[in-house]
Amino acid sequence: MTNTQVTLIQIDNYGPWTVTPEPRREVDLQTLQSRLYADLSQLFGNREGYVFFTRFDNMIAVTNGLDADAHALIQESVGNRYPVTVSLGVEADASPAAALGRATTHLQDAGSAQDAARTEILSGAPLAEEDRADDDVQIAHFDVNDATGKYTDQLNEFDSFIRIEQGYASLMRYMREAHDALSFFVGGDNVIAVCPAMDEADYRDAIDHVRDEVSVELKVGVGRSRNAQGAGMDAKHALETCRHDNTDVEFR
Amino acid sequence: MTNTQVTLIQIDNYGPWTVTPEPRREVDLQTLQSRLYADLSQLFGNREGYVFFTRFDNMIAVTNGLDADAHALIQESVGNRYPVTVSLGVEADASPAAALGRATTHLQDAGSAQDAARTEILSGAPLAEEDRADDDVQIAHFDVNDATGKYTDQLNEFDSFIRIEQGYASLMRYMREAHDALSFFVGGDNVIAVCPAMDEADYRDAIDHVRDEVSVELKVGVGRSRNAQGAGMDAKHALETCRHDNTDVEFR
Amino acid sequence: MTNTQVTLIQIDNYGPWTVTPEPRREVDLQTLQSRLYADLSQLFGNREGYVFFTRFDNMIAVTNGLDADAHALIQESVGNRYPVTVSLGVEADASPAAALGRATTHLQDAGSAQDAARTEILSGAPLAEEDRADDDVQIAHFDVNDATGKYTDQLNEFDSFIRIEQGYASLMRYMREAHDALSFFVGGDNVIAVCPAMDEADYRDAIDHVRDEVSVELKVGVGRSRNAQGAGMDAKHALETCRHDNTDVEFR
Amino acid sequence: MTNTQVTLIQIDNYGPWTVTPEPRREVDLQTLQSRLYADLSQLFGNREGYVFFTRFDNMIAVTNGLDADAHALIQESVGNRYPVTVSLGVEADASPAAALGRATTHLQDAGSAQDAARTEILSGAPLAEEDRADDDVQIAHFDVNDATGKYTDQLNEFDSFIRIEQGYASLMRYMREAHDALSFFVGGDNVIAVCPAMDEADYRDAIDHVRDEVSVELKVGVGRSRNAQGAGMDAKHALETCRHDNTDVEFR
Repeated sequence: MTNTQVTLIQIDNYGPWTVTPEPRREVDLQTLQSRLYADLSQLFGNREGYVFFTRFDNMIAVTNGLDADAHALIQESVGNRYPVTVSLGVEADASPAAALGRATTHLQDAGSAQDAARTEILSGAPLAEEDRADDDVQIAHFDVNDATGKYTDQLNEFDSFIRIEQGYASLMRYMREAHDALSFFVGGDNVIAVCPAMDEADYRDAIDHVRDEVSVELKVGVGRSRNAQGAGMDAKHALETCRHDNTDVEFR
Repeated sequence: MTNTQVTLIQIDNYGPWTVTPEPRREVDLQTLQSRLYADLSQLFGNREGYVFFTRFDNMIAVTNGLDADAHALIQESVGNRYPVTVSLGVEADASPAAALGRATTHLQDAGSAQDAARTEILSGAPLAEEDRADDDVQIAHFDVNDATGKYTDQLNEFDSFIRIEQGYASLMRYMREAHDALSFFVGGDNVIAVCPAMDEADYRDAIDHVRDEVSVELKVGVGRSRNAQGAGMDAKHALETCRHDNTDVEFR
Repeated sequence: MTNTQVTLIQIDNYGPWTVTPEPRREVDLQTLQSRLYADLSQLFGNREGYVFFTRFDNMIAVTNGLDADAHALIQESVGNRYPVTVSLGVEADASPAAALGRATTHLQDAGSAQDAARTEILSGAPLAEEDRADDDVQIAHFDVNDATGKYTDQLNEFDSFIRIEQGYASLMRYMREAHDALSFFVGGDNVIAVCPAMDEADYRDAIDHVRDEVSVELKVGVGRSRNAQGAGMDAKHALETCRHDNTDVEFR
Repeated sequence: MTNTQVTLIQIDNYGPWTVTPEPRREVDLQTLQSRLYADLSQLFGNREGYVFFTRFDNMIAVTNGLDADAHALIQESVGNRYPVTVSLGVEADASPAAALGRATTHLQDAGSAQDAARTEILSGAPLAEEDRADDDVQIAHFDVNDATGKYTDQLNEFDSFIRIEQGYASLMRYMREAHDALSFFVGGDNVIAVCPAMDEADYRDAIDHVRDEVSVELKVGVGRSRNAQGAGMDAKHALETCRHDNTDVEFR
């Protein structure tokens, strides 16, 4: 069984901030959101975690290896460098969705995302060192077969984008409903999913489902490790094996 | 009629670069992609343009006001500061999708997105100053009604995210098929669309379609101006009017 | 005669902010300061200006080509993305130091750098377009002869640094006292000076002074143009001519 | 006795890169240098280290707590996100200057700073965990008495800057020659020094020297800890004590 530690990162009171006293320039909001995400990617990534941009005002991270102090330091660092602050909820579970659910509840219990009085919450239960194991995290890295040949070099970019989005939307729903897995588009034609202990047949079913539903062809590499960085890098290497051996599902 | 100038920004040879000589750390790729987007947001945004992150290796911008020299400077600046380079295709048309299509074709004609020999293409036809008008760009800014109350403060973050994604996917397909409009998720519960000259009834139809197809309730503010910044800021203000007056569609 | 437009950029109330409620982490302050400088470098640089980091809480820019609106947009953009705001004073003069003096006075008249009530001042007189000329800005780019061979590859880094610092300190005082010029260390072994209309003999005297005072050998390339970017790039090319022709002073 | 672990960070082949094939835009070089420094500040800072920008192409860090693996990860991360790479030399000694000297020698032995074939060196001897102690690092945080009242609110910014620079230059030379300490200007009117085990009388002598040589009045807070972050934060708090109690030298 996996034991995924998930952290929900939520910018405090962001909606109101973006329009107070007047609506702020969109290009500046995009710059702020993207750079905050990039910084969090480094802050968690330097401790073997992974962060996904999700909705930018709400981001999801896999944080096996980060304790409460590490979370507090990240929260403090953001407060020192941005005009906004973040609240963090942390929980672990064999089911990634269940972990996220409890992490989210910590923040919801403390107050609304648009409650100006609710700031810099840090709540939840990171895994104690002695409760961690070498197979806690399973990461699957999907990409679209020959996206460059079929889409990028053929269609106008928005139509390529629509097809990738449809593939992602189909995969994300299926993985959530069938396995409690959390799937994230990470750019290009790539989707990274945070999974419970799924096997090869489970991944073949997911790939078949997406092909049947939206006619998008996927392949996937899967890794299992103590933390997101380890599992994620193994998944990347497994995906390279798919490319070289012309297979659809590879584990490493 | 609108006259939307669209620029396609494509990172040269990115797929191969991310796995050569070995797959690179995901957190570093995410940091690079996000920061490149943030920089482009500022580079184009400082000249009244808007950039949308789209797939990160391919980004779409509305660039009324930027001539060939401005595009060249942006391309040079990226080459000076990143380990990758970008190719740019630029075209204008009353139909945003048609403009994007021709812009994309410029790059495809020059070579594949994964052709190591195709770098820093700068091709296309920015609008001459004398061909520009005060109503060239129409921007629509959608958001989900009471997303915070219905989703963010109620569901686990991934389930909130799925609902926002479904709303976006439905809107993006409809707007593309019915109006040649290009719609982009920009974080939170917000979607910004680059539109031809659509009227109030057109927007009501779009909102009805999304409600009927995926049960997500949208409202929209619309702006029209000489460039993306002007139209986009008007759209934001119009959206504020929707919030205050409890309406679904407002023009400014 | 030159006509240098100088902008003083001062972070509002920074000293108190760095220690309220408690002293903030130094690494975060360094990150914030450096990134604010990098952003201002791009914001002014995209309009042909140059920015020098100076003391980081106070920065000096050469802004020929930026009007009041451009300054206001830059100020707004910083306020949207940072936990601090900036005040800007702008003036032009044949003497760079005199321009800076009047620019500084605008801010001092409005209130102290540590007055919490004084924020986002925008004051002064940018050059009107009709008052600009093609020789308004003179930039000199100095570097140390064979710094790599003499220092970097020989001494421990701090001792290399001390020698470069001494050369800079000597040059900055001389250029200020003799010519009202403003000189800035820009990294490596490079110093960029913003000068009035100085001739070849003036630069030879400066080089002789530094050699005599601190035994550091300099060479210099000089450019003259409508704005900082033009003059600065010419100065870089002139410095390359020094390297190739083994000369000490070159104009372009 | 202190046991300062010092890392020299040197950008590989930077001088040639900045002018190949042609001189690159200065504003882009400034942006790249500043952002690289900001990223290194976070990368080392997240592991309790401190980084000083020094000459930007050569930077000095205090890295007690970072082992060889941490250095390798930082080096890899830079290579993934920048158009340049860095070489790192690491050594520890009771004398900060001696540690830096040996760290520098590692890089010089491997090749010139402008040798295109010398890249991503990682060399030296980080402290083994069992050789570390709670008083390994001593940090002194100096600032100028009433810089705002005497300089910033009175003089033009360059003249304020000259006085701060003179104070820094005097202090840096004295501290290096008398104590093997390494002093760095960190913005505003602040200087942070990495010291061996100096006592109150040593600091009073340094302050007297600077007052006598250049008429700049300093005060200082001093901290001692296992790593730079701990010692540096104690030094900041000690400096606050100086402010409140109107004293010149405080230890914490």
